[in-house]
Amino acid sequence: MKKNYKMIVSYDGTRYYGWEHQPDTDMTIQGKLEAVLEGLRMSEGTGGADASPITVIGAGRTDAGVHARAMTCNVLLDTELTEEALQAYMNRYLPEDISVNDVRICADRFHSRFKAMGKTYRYTCWYGASRPVFDRKYVYVLDRKPDIGRMQAAADLMTGLRDYKSFCGNPRMKKSTVRAVDTVRIEESGSYIRFYIHGSGFLQNMVRIMTGTLLEVGFGDRDPEEIPEILAACDRSRAGFTAPAKGLCLMKVDY
Amino acid sequence: MKKNYKMIVSYDGTRYYGWEHQPDTDMTIQGKLEAVLEGLRMSEGTGGADASPITVIGAGRTDAGVHARAMTCNVLLDTELTEEALQAYMNRYLPEDISVNDVRICADRFHSRFKAMGKTYRYTCWYGASRPVFDRKYVYVLDRKPDIGRMQAAADLMTGLRDYKSFCGNPRMKKSTVRAVDTVRIEESGSYIRFYIHGSGFLQNMVRIMTGTLLEVGFGDRDPEEIPEILAACDRSRAGFTAPAKGLCLMKVDY
Repeated sequence: MKKNYKMIVSYDGTRYYGWEHQPDTDMTIQGKLEAVLEGLRMSEGTGGADASPITVIGAGRTDAGVHARAMTCNVLLDTELTEEALQAYMNRYLPEDISVNDVRICADRFHSRFKAMGKTYRYTCWYGASRPVFDRKYVYVLDRKPDIGRMQAAADLMTGLRDYKSFCGNPRMKKSTVRAVDTVRIEESGSYIRFYIHGSGFLQNMVRIMTGTLLEVGFGDRDPEEIPEILAACDRSRAGFTAPAKGLCLMKVDY
Repeated sequence: MKKNYKMIVSYDGTRYYGWEHQPDTDMTIQGKLEAVLEGLRMSEGTGGADASPITVIGAGRTDAGVHARAMTCNVLLDTELTEEALQAYMNRYLPEDISVNDVRICADRFHSRFKAMGKTYRYTCWYGASRPVFDRKYVYVLDRKPDIGRMQAAADLMTGLRDYKSFCGNPRMKKSTVRAVDTVRIEESGSYIRFYIHGSGFLQNMVRIMTGTLLEVGFGDRDPEEIPEILAACDRSRAGFTAPAKGLCLMKVDY
Protein backbone atom coordinates (compact mmCIF):
# COMPACT_ATOMS: atom_id res chain seq x y z
CA MET A 1 0.00 0.00 0.00
CA LYS A 2 1.43 3.31 -1.04
CA LYS A 3 1.59 6.04 1.56
CA ASN A 4 2.37 9.73 1.08
CA TYR A 5 5.66 10.76 2.74
CA LYS A 6 6.46 14.38 3.46
CA MET A 7 10.20 15.08 3.70
CA ILE A 8 12.33 18.06 4.69
CA VAL A 9 15.59 18.10 2.75
CA SER A 10 18.66 20.32 2.89
CA TYR A 11 21.36 20.45 0.27
CA ASP A 12 24.50 22.19 -0.78
CA GLY A 13 23.58 22.97 -4.40
CA THR A 14 27.14 23.66 -5.56
CA ARG A 15 27.57 20.43 -7.53
CA TYR A 16 24.03 20.20 -8.86
CA TYR A 17 22.07 21.36 -11.90
CA GLY A 18 19.25 22.44 -9.61
CA TRP A 19 16.35 20.62 -8.02
CA GLU A 20 14.59 19.40 -11.12
CA HIS A 21 15.44 16.54 -13.48
CA GLN A 22 17.54 17.55 -16.44
CA PRO A 23 18.19 15.58 -19.58
CA ASP A 24 21.68 14.06 -19.84
CA THR A 25 22.68 14.37 -16.18
CA ASP A 26 21.90 12.62 -12.92
CA MET A 27 23.26 15.59 -10.95
CA THR A 28 19.97 17.01 -9.75
CA ILE A 29 18.58 16.90 -6.22
CA GLN A 30 15.32 15.34 -7.37
CA GLY A 31 17.26 12.75 -9.36
CA LYS A 32 19.47 11.78 -6.41
CA LEU A 33 16.49 11.40 -4.06
CA GLU A 34 14.56 9.30 -6.57
CA ALA A 35 17.56 7.10 -7.33
CA VAL A 36 17.96 6.22 -3.64
CA LEU A 37 14.23 5.47 -3.32
CA GLU A 38 14.34 3.31 -6.48
CA GLY A 39 17.21 1.41 -4.84
CA LEU A 40 15.08 0.88 -1.73
CA ARG A 41 12.16 -0.37 -3.83
CA MET A 42 14.45 -2.80 -5.59
CA SER A 43 15.89 -4.08 -2.30
CA GLU A 44 12.41 -4.52 -0.84
CA GLY A 45 11.12 -6.13 -4.05
CA THR A 46 7.97 -3.99 -3.98
CA GLY A 47 8.30 -2.57 -7.46
CA GLY A 48 7.89 -5.21 -10.14
CA ALA A 49 8.76 -4.89 -13.79
CA ASP A 50 5.82 -2.66 -14.68
CA ALA A 51 6.11 -0.29 -11.72
CA SER A 52 5.87 3.40 -12.54
CA PRO A 53 8.95 5.49 -11.70
CA ILE A 54 9.10 7.05 -8.25
CA THR A 55 8.50 10.82 -8.38
CA VAL A 56 9.60 13.15 -5.60
CA ILE A 57 7.52 16.33 -5.79
CA GLY A 58 9.33 19.43 -4.54
CA ALA A 59 7.75 22.63 -3.21
CA GLY A 60 9.52 24.44 -6.02
CA ARG A 61 12.47 24.28 -8.34
CA THR A 62 15.76 25.70 -7.17
CA ASP A 63 18.21 26.82 -9.86
CA ALA A 64 21.58 25.21 -10.50
CA GLY A 65 23.93 26.08 -7.65
CA VAL A 66 21.21 27.27 -5.26
CA HIS A 67 21.13 25.75 -1.76
CA ALA A 68 18.30 24.74 0.56
CA ARG A 69 18.11 24.41 4.33
CA ALA A 70 14.54 23.16 4.30
CA MET A 71 13.07 22.18 0.97
CA THR A 72 9.78 20.34 1.48
CA CYS A 73 8.89 17.49 -0.83
CA ASN A 74 6.54 14.53 -0.90
CA VAL A 75 6.56 11.11 -2.49
CA LEU A 76 4.19 8.15 -2.72
CA LEU A 77 5.97 5.01 -1.51
CA ASP A 78 5.19 1.42 -0.72
CA THR A 79 7.75 0.48 1.94
CA GLU A 80 7.96 -1.56 5.11
CA LEU A 81 10.32 0.95 6.72
CA THR A 82 9.24 3.24 9.55
CA GLU A 83 9.62 6.98 9.04
CA GLU A 84 12.85 6.99 11.07
CA ALA A 85 14.26 3.97 9.22
CA LEU A 86 13.39 5.52 5.86
CA GLN A 87 15.21 8.73 6.85
CA ALA A 88 18.24 6.73 8.01
CA TYR A 89 18.23 4.65 4.80
CA MET A 90 18.17 7.77 2.63
CA ASN A 91 20.93 9.50 4.58
CA ARG A 92 23.07 6.37 4.31
CA TYR A 93 22.83 6.26 0.51
CA LEU A 94 22.55 9.92 -0.48
CA PRO A 95 25.71 11.90 -1.24
CA GLU A 96 26.94 13.86 1.77
CA ASP A 97 25.83 17.21 0.34
CA ILE A 98 22.16 16.19 0.59
CA SER A 99 20.46 15.45 3.91
CA VAL A 100 16.94 14.28 4.75
CA ASN A 101 16.11 16.11 7.97
CA ASP A 102 12.62 14.80 8.59
CA VAL A 103 10.24 12.18 7.21
CA ARG A 104 6.53 11.97 8.13
CA ILE A 105 3.62 10.06 6.68
CA CYS A 106 1.06 12.70 5.69
CA ALA A 107 -2.45 12.90 4.28
CA ASP A 108 -2.81 11.53 0.74
CA ARG A 109 -4.07 14.93 -0.40
CA PHE A 110 -0.84 16.69 0.67
CA HIS A 111 1.06 18.01 -2.36
CA SER A 112 4.24 19.90 -1.57
CA ARG A 113 3.92 22.29 -4.53
CA PHE A 114 0.17 22.91 -4.73
CA LYS A 115 -0.24 23.28 -0.95
CA ALA A 116 2.75 25.61 -0.44
CA MET A 117 1.47 28.92 0.97
CA GLY A 118 4.77 30.79 1.12
CA LYS A 119 8.53 30.54 0.99
CA THR A 120 11.43 32.21 2.73
CA TYR A 121 14.67 32.73 0.84
CA ARG A 122 17.91 34.15 2.18
CA TYR A 123 20.56 35.73 -0.01
CA THR A 124 23.98 36.16 1.63
CA CYS A 125 26.64 38.66 0.60
CA TRP A 126 30.02 39.35 2.17
CA TYR A 127 32.08 42.47 2.16
CA GLY A 128 35.25 42.82 4.21
CA ALA A 129 39.03 43.01 4.31
CA SER A 130 39.18 39.29 5.05
CA ARG A 131 37.43 36.47 3.23
CA PRO A 132 34.73 33.94 4.17
CA VAL A 133 36.94 30.87 4.13
CA PHE A 134 34.50 28.42 5.72
CA ASP A 135 31.33 29.41 3.90
CA ARG A 136 32.86 30.63 0.68
CA LYS A 137 30.52 28.37 -1.32
CA TYR A 138 27.42 29.93 0.25
CA VAL A 139 28.11 33.66 -0.01
CA TYR A 140 28.57 36.21 -2.76
CA VAL A 141 31.73 38.23 -2.09
CA LEU A 142 31.35 41.93 -2.94
CA ASP A 143 34.27 44.17 -3.85
CA ARG A 144 32.51 47.33 -2.63
CA LYS A 145 30.28 48.00 0.34
CA PRO A 146 26.66 48.70 -0.60
CA ASP A 147 24.64 51.26 1.36
CA ILE A 148 22.24 49.28 3.52
CA GLY A 149 19.82 52.18 4.10
CA ARG A 150 19.42 52.81 0.36
CA MET A 151 18.87 49.12 -0.27
CA GLN A 152 16.24 48.83 2.48
CA ALA A 153 14.43 51.90 1.10
CA ALA A 154 14.33 50.25 -2.33
CA ALA A 155 13.36 46.89 -0.80
CA ASP A 156 10.34 48.48 0.89
CA LEU A 157 9.12 49.51 -2.57
CA MET A 158 9.39 45.95 -3.85
CA THR A 159 6.81 44.35 -1.59
CA GLY A 160 3.11 43.92 -2.26
CA LEU A 161 0.81 41.98 -4.53
CA ARG A 162 2.35 42.92 -7.86
CA ASP A 163 3.26 41.85 -11.34
CA TYR A 164 6.94 40.87 -11.00
CA LYS A 165 7.51 40.31 -14.74
CA SER A 166 10.52 42.67 -14.66
CA PHE A 167 12.07 40.29 -12.12
CA CYS A 168 11.40 37.09 -14.07
CA GLY A 169 14.38 35.34 -15.64
CA ASN A 170 12.27 33.31 -18.05
CA PRO A 171 11.45 35.38 -21.17
CA ARG A 172 9.01 32.74 -22.37
CA MET A 173 6.93 32.75 -19.17
CA LYS A 174 3.32 32.30 -20.30
CA LYS A 175 1.54 32.09 -16.95
CA SER A 176 0.77 34.90 -14.52
CA THR A 177 3.76 36.78 -13.20
CA VAL A 178 1.77 38.25 -10.31
CA ARG A 179 3.11 37.30 -6.88
CA ALA A 180 2.70 38.52 -3.31
CA VAL A 181 5.94 39.45 -1.56
CA ASP A 182 5.47 40.64 2.01
CA THR A 183 9.04 40.86 3.31
CA VAL A 184 12.34 42.07 1.90
CA ARG A 185 14.52 42.64 4.96
CA ILE A 186 18.23 43.41 4.85
CA GLU A 187 20.44 42.60 7.84
CA GLU A 188 24.07 43.43 8.37
CA SER A 189 26.11 41.35 10.78
CA GLY A 190 29.87 41.76 10.78
CA SER A 191 30.98 41.27 7.18
CA TYR A 192 27.73 39.55 6.21
CA ILE A 193 24.85 41.29 4.45
CA ARG A 194 21.79 39.08 4.36
CA PHE A 195 18.59 39.58 2.37
CA TYR A 196 15.54 37.78 3.79
CA ILE A 197 12.70 37.54 1.30
CA HIS A 198 9.30 36.03 2.01
CA GLY A 199 6.43 35.69 -0.42
CA SER A 200 3.64 33.51 -1.72
CA GLY A 201 5.83 32.19 -4.48
CA PHE A 202 8.60 33.28 -6.79
CA LEU A 203 9.31 33.41 -10.52
CA GLN A 204 12.44 31.97 -12.08
CA ASN A 205 15.56 33.84 -10.80
CA MET A 206 13.23 36.33 -9.09
CA VAL A 207 15.05 36.49 -5.74
CA ARG A 208 18.41 36.74 -7.47
CA ILE A 209 17.23 39.57 -9.77
CA MET A 210 15.67 41.39 -6.80
CA THR A 211 18.96 41.04 -4.91
CA GLY A 212 21.01 42.16 -7.91
CA THR A 213 18.77 45.22 -8.36
CA LEU A 214 19.03 46.08 -4.66
CA LEU A 215 22.83 45.79 -4.80
CA GLU A 216 22.89 48.23 -7.74
CA VAL A 217 20.88 50.64 -5.59
CA GLY A 218 23.30 50.01 -2.72
CA PHE A 219 26.26 50.79 -4.96
CA GLY A 220 24.64 54.07 -6.03
CA ASP A 221 24.12 52.97 -9.65
CA ARG A 222 20.35 53.31 -9.24
CA ASP A 223 17.98 55.21 -6.99
CA PRO A 224 15.42 53.56 -4.71
CA GLU A 225 12.76 55.65 -6.46
CA GLU A 226 13.32 53.69 -9.68
CA ILE A 227 11.80 50.54 -8.21
CA PRO A 228 8.14 51.44 -8.92
CA GLU A 229 9.07 52.28 -12.54
CA ILE A 230 10.94 49.00 -12.93
CA LEU A 231 7.94 47.07 -11.61
CA ALA A 232 5.52 49.01 -13.81
CA ALA A 233 7.60 48.39 -16.94
CA CYS A 234 7.06 44.61 -16.85
CA ASP A 235 10.36 44.36 -18.71
CA ARG A 236 13.25 42.20 -17.47
CA SER A 237 15.82 44.51 -19.07
CA ARG A 238 14.81 47.34 -16.72
CA ALA A 239 15.79 45.45 -13.54
CA GLY A 240 19.31 44.74 -12.31
CA PHE A 241 21.70 41.84 -12.74
CA THR A 242 21.01 38.30 -11.60
CA ALA A 243 23.01 37.79 -8.39
CA PRO A 244 25.04 34.55 -8.45
CA ALA A 245 23.31 31.32 -7.44
CA LYS A 246 25.79 30.45 -4.68
CA GLY A 247 24.49 33.16 -2.32
CA LEU A 248 20.89 31.94 -2.41
CA CYS A 249 19.31 29.49 0.01
CA LEU A 250 15.70 28.30 0.38
CA MET A 251 15.12 28.54 4.13
CA LYS A 252 11.52 27.43 4.68
CA VAL A 253 8.27 26.50 2.94
CA ASP A 254 4.98 27.36 4.66
CA TYR A 255 1.85 25.18 4.51
CA MET B 1 64.20 48.22 5.36
CA LYS B 2 62.65 44.99 6.57
CA LYS B 3 59.84 45.24 9.07
CA ASN B 4 58.24 42.46 11.10
CA TYR B 5 54.61 41.83 10.12
CA LYS B 6 52.24 39.95 12.39
CA MET B 7 49.36 38.32 10.57
CA ILE B 8 46.17 36.50 11.56
CA VAL B 9 45.25 33.85 9.02
CA SER B 10 42.30 31.50 8.66
CA TYR B 11 42.14 28.53 6.38
CA ASP B 12 40.09 25.56 5.35
CA GLY B 13 42.75 22.85 5.64
CA THR B 14 40.87 20.27 3.54
CA ARG B 15 43.06 20.55 0.44
CA TYR B 16 46.39 21.07 2.23
CA TYR B 17 49.19 18.94 3.61
CA GLY B 18 49.19 21.02 6.79
CA TRP B 19 50.76 24.30 7.76
CA GLU B 20 54.40 23.45 7.22
CA HIS B 21 56.43 23.08 4.03
CA GLN B 22 56.57 19.55 2.69
CA PRO B 23 58.92 18.19 0.07
CA ASP B 24 57.34 17.57 -3.34
CA THR B 25 54.19 19.65 -2.88
CA ASP B 26 53.25 23.31 -2.83
CA MET B 27 49.97 22.51 -1.10
CA THR B 28 50.83 23.79 2.36
CA ILE B 29 49.52 26.92 4.03
CA GLN B 30 53.01 28.24 4.73
CA GLY B 31 53.99 27.57 1.12
CA LYS B 32 50.97 29.43 -0.28
CA LEU B 33 51.57 32.47 1.94
CA GLU B 34 55.26 32.60 1.07
CA ALA B 35 54.59 32.19 -2.66
CA VAL B 36 52.29 35.23 -2.65
CA LEU B 37 54.84 37.29 -0.70
CA GLU B 38 57.61 36.22 -3.10
CA GLY B 39 55.36 37.42 -5.92
CA LEU B 40 54.96 40.78 -4.18
CA ARG B 41 58.74 41.09 -3.70
CA MET B 42 59.27 40.36 -7.38
CA SER B 43 56.67 42.92 -8.43
CA GLU B 44 58.20 45.54 -6.13
CA GLY B 45 61.74 44.64 -7.23
CA THR B 46 62.96 44.65 -3.62
CA GLY B 47 64.49 41.17 -3.67
CA GLY B 48 67.46 40.94 -5.96
CA ALA B 49 69.15 37.78 -7.19
CA ASP B 50 70.83 36.95 -3.88
CA ALA B 51 67.82 37.58 -1.65
CA SER B 52 67.12 34.93 0.97
CA PRO B 53 63.75 33.18 0.70
CA ILE B 54 60.82 34.73 2.56
CA THR B 55 59.89 32.68 5.63
CA VAL B 56 56.49 32.93 7.28
CA ILE B 57 56.79 31.74 10.89
CA GLY B 58 53.62 30.16 12.27
CA ALA B 59 52.60 29.87 15.91
CA GLY B 60 52.57 26.12 15.40
CA ARG B 61 52.17 23.43 12.81
CA THR B 62 48.71 22.21 11.99
CA ASP B 63 48.40 18.70 10.54
CA ALA B 64 47.17 17.89 7.06
CA GLY B 65 43.44 18.55 6.86
CA VAL B 66 43.25 20.63 10.07
CA HIS B 67 41.63 24.07 9.87
CA ALA B 68 42.37 27.40 11.54
CA ARG B 69 40.18 30.39 12.34
CA ALA B 70 43.04 32.45 13.74
CA MET B 71 46.54 31.14 13.17
CA THR B 72 49.08 33.81 14.08
CA CYS B 73 52.23 34.13 12.04
CA ASN B 74 54.97 36.69 11.42
CA VAL B 75 57.26 37.50 8.53
CA LEU B 76 60.09 39.94 7.87
CA LEU B 77 59.31 41.96 4.76
CA ASP B 78 60.66 44.91 2.86
CA THR B 79 57.63 46.42 1.18
CA GLU B 80 56.19 49.82 0.33
CA LEU B 81 52.64 48.64 1.01
CA THR B 82 50.66 49.78 4.03
CA GLU B 83 49.34 47.10 6.37
CA GLU B 84 45.87 47.36 4.77
CA ALA B 85 47.26 47.23 1.24
CA LEU B 86 49.42 44.23 2.11
CA GLN B 87 46.37 42.40 3.47
CA ALA B 88 44.37 43.27 0.35
CA TYR B 89 47.22 42.16 -1.91
CA MET B 90 47.50 38.80 -0.16
CA ASN B 91 43.75 38.17 -0.22
CA ARG B 92 43.70 39.00 -3.91
CA TYR B 93 46.34 36.39 -4.78
CA LEU B 94 45.78 33.66 -2.17
CA PRO B 95 43.44 30.77 -2.99
CA GLU B 96 39.94 31.34 -1.65
CA ASP B 97 40.34 28.78 1.15
CA ILE B 98 43.00 30.93 2.85
CA SER B 99 42.26 34.40 4.24
CA VAL B 100 44.49 37.00 5.87
CA ASN B 101 42.27 38.59 8.52
CA ASP B 102 44.68 41.10 9.98
CA VAL B 103 48.15 42.53 9.27
CA ARG B 104 50.10 44.68 11.75
CA ILE B 105 53.69 45.84 11.89
CA CYS B 106 55.02 44.57 15.22
CA ALA B 107 58.20 44.75 17.28
CA ASP B 108 61.23 43.13 15.68
CA ARG B 109 61.54 40.80 18.65
CA PHE B 110 58.03 39.34 18.12
CA HIS B 111 58.24 35.67 17.11
CA SER B 112 54.90 33.96 16.62
CA ARG B 113 56.11 30.56 17.83
CA PHE B 114 58.51 31.45 20.65
CA LYS B 115 56.22 34.12 22.09
CA ALA B 116 53.03 32.02 21.96
CA MET B 117 51.72 31.58 25.51
CA GLY B 118 48.72 29.40 24.79
CA LYS B 119 46.42 28.01 22.13
CA THR B 120 42.73 27.22 21.90
CA TYR B 121 41.60 24.35 19.71
CA ARG B 122 38.06 23.27 18.99
CA TYR B 123 37.12 19.78 17.88
CA THR B 124 33.62 19.44 16.39
CA CYS B 125 31.58 16.23 16.22
CA TRP B 126 28.06 15.70 14.94
CA TYR B 127 25.51 13.10 15.85
CA GLY B 128 21.96 13.18 14.55
CA ALA B 129 19.32 11.73 12.26
CA SER B 130 20.14 14.36 9.64
CA ARG B 131 23.54 15.36 8.30
CA PRO B 132 25.68 18.50 8.43
CA VAL B 133 25.39 19.42 4.77
CA PHE B 134 26.90 22.91 4.97
CA ASP B 135 29.82 22.22 7.29
CA ARG B 136 30.42 18.61 6.41
CA LYS B 137 34.12 19.33 5.80
CA TYR B 138 34.57 20.74 9.32
CA VAL B 139 32.88 18.14 11.51
CA TYR B 140 33.40 14.49 12.37
CA VAL B 141 30.10 12.63 11.96
CA LEU B 142 29.52 10.00 14.68
CA ASP B 143 27.35 6.94 14.17
CA ARG B 144 26.51 6.66 17.90
CA LYS B 145 25.83 9.27 20.54
CA PRO B 146 28.57 9.53 23.16
CA ASP B 147 27.69 10.22 26.81
CA ILE B 148 28.64 13.83 27.45
CA GLY B 149 28.78 13.48 31.25
CA ARG B 150 31.21 10.57 31.07
CA MET B 151 33.38 12.48 28.58
CA GLN B 152 33.45 15.61 30.74
CA ALA B 153 34.40 13.52 33.81
CA ALA B 154 37.29 12.03 31.83
CA ALA B 155 38.21 15.44 30.40
CA ASP B 156 38.52 16.87 33.91
CA LEU B 157 41.18 14.24 34.61
CA MET B 158 43.18 15.26 31.54
CA THR B 159 44.04 18.80 32.60
CA GLY B 160 47.09 19.96 34.52
CA LEU B 161 50.82 20.29 34.03
CA ARG B 162 51.59 16.76 32.91
CA ASP B 163 53.64 14.52 30.70
CA TYR B 164 51.36 13.95 27.70
CA LYS B 165 53.59 11.36 26.01
CA SER B 166 50.66 8.93 25.79
CA PHE B 167 48.86 11.56 23.68
CA CYS B 168 51.77 12.25 21.35
CA GLY B 169 51.47 11.00 17.79
CA ASN B 170 55.20 11.23 17.09
CA PRO B 171 56.96 8.07 18.35
CA ARG B 172 60.37 9.65 17.76
CA MET B 173 59.68 12.73 19.86
CA LYS B 174 62.99 13.53 21.58
CA LYS B 175 62.10 16.75 23.40
CA SER B 176 59.98 17.17 26.52
CA THR B 177 56.41 15.92 26.27
CA VAL B 178 55.32 17.91 29.33
CA ARG B 179 52.57 20.44 28.61
CA ALA B 180 50.07 22.47 30.63
CA VAL B 181 46.44 22.00 29.62
CA ASP B 182 44.00 24.05 31.66
CA THR B 183 40.69 23.54 29.84
CA VAL B 184 38.96 20.58 28.24
CA ARG B 185 35.32 21.61 28.00
CA ILE B 186 32.64 19.73 26.11
CA GLU B 187 29.53 21.52 24.85
CA GLU B 188 26.46 20.05 23.23
CA SER B 189 24.34 22.24 20.99
CA GLY B 190 21.71 20.58 18.84
CA SER B 191 23.46 17.84 16.92
CA TYR B 192 26.91 19.36 17.52
CA ILE B 193 29.28 18.16 20.23
CA ARG B 194 32.22 20.54 20.57
CA PHE B 195 35.44 20.02 22.52
CA TYR B 196 37.23 23.23 23.54
CA ILE B 197 40.82 22.63 24.59
CA HIS B 198 43.19 25.30 25.86
CA GLY B 199 46.80 24.81 26.89
CA SER B 200 50.31 26.19 26.77
CA GLY B 201 51.13 24.11 23.74
CA PHE B 202 50.35 20.79 22.16
CA LEU B 203 52.26 17.75 20.90
CA GLN B 204 51.73 16.28 17.45
CA ASN B 205 48.14 14.94 17.11
CA MET B 206 47.63 15.63 20.83
CA VAL B 207 44.19 17.26 20.59
CA ARG B 208 42.99 14.60 18.18
CA ILE B 209 44.18 11.75 20.44
CA MET B 210 42.62 13.43 23.48
CA THR B 211 39.34 13.75 21.55
CA GLY B 212 39.50 10.15 20.32
CA THR B 213 40.13 8.91 23.85
CA LEU B 214 37.24 10.98 25.21
CA LEU B 215 34.92 9.63 22.51
CA GLU B 216 35.87 6.07 23.52
CA VAL B 217 34.90 6.98 27.09
CA GLY B 218 31.69 8.51 25.77
CA PHE B 219 30.87 5.31 23.86
CA GLY B 220 31.41 3.24 27.02
CA ASP B 221 34.49 1.46 25.67
CA ARG B 222 36.62 2.99 28.46
CA ASP B 223 36.00 4.40 31.92
CA PRO B 224 36.86 7.97 32.92
CA GLU B 225 38.97 6.49 35.74
CA GLU B 226 41.42 5.09 33.16
CA ILE B 227 42.67 8.55 32.23
CA PRO B 228 45.22 8.88 35.07
CA GLU B 229 46.63 5.44 34.18
CA ILE B 230 46.87 6.35 30.51
CA LEU B 231 48.75 9.55 31.36
CA ALA B 232 51.05 7.73 33.81
CA ALA B 233 51.91 5.03 31.26
CA CYS B 234 53.63 7.50 28.90
CA ASP B 235 52.73 5.07 26.12
CA ARG B 236 50.82 6.11 23.00
CA SER B 237 49.28 2.67 22.62
CA ARG B 238 47.37 3.10 25.90
CA ALA B 239 45.38 6.12 24.68
CA GLY B 240 42.50 6.11 22.20
CA PHE B 241 42.28 6.59 18.46
CA THR B 242 43.34 9.72 16.62
CA ALA B 243 40.13 11.58 15.74
CA PRO B 244 40.02 12.66 12.06
CA ALA B 245 41.74 15.91 11.11
CA LYS B 246 38.64 17.48 9.53
CA GLY B 247 36.96 18.10 12.93
CA LEU B 248 39.89 20.10 14.34
CA CYS B 249 40.28 23.87 14.19
CA LEU B 250 42.87 26.19 15.75
CA MET B 251 40.75 28.98 17.21
CA LYS B 252 43.20 31.37 18.85
CA VAL B 253 46.83 31.88 19.86
CA ASP B 254 47.60 33.85 23.04
CA TYR B 255 50.59 36.17 23.45
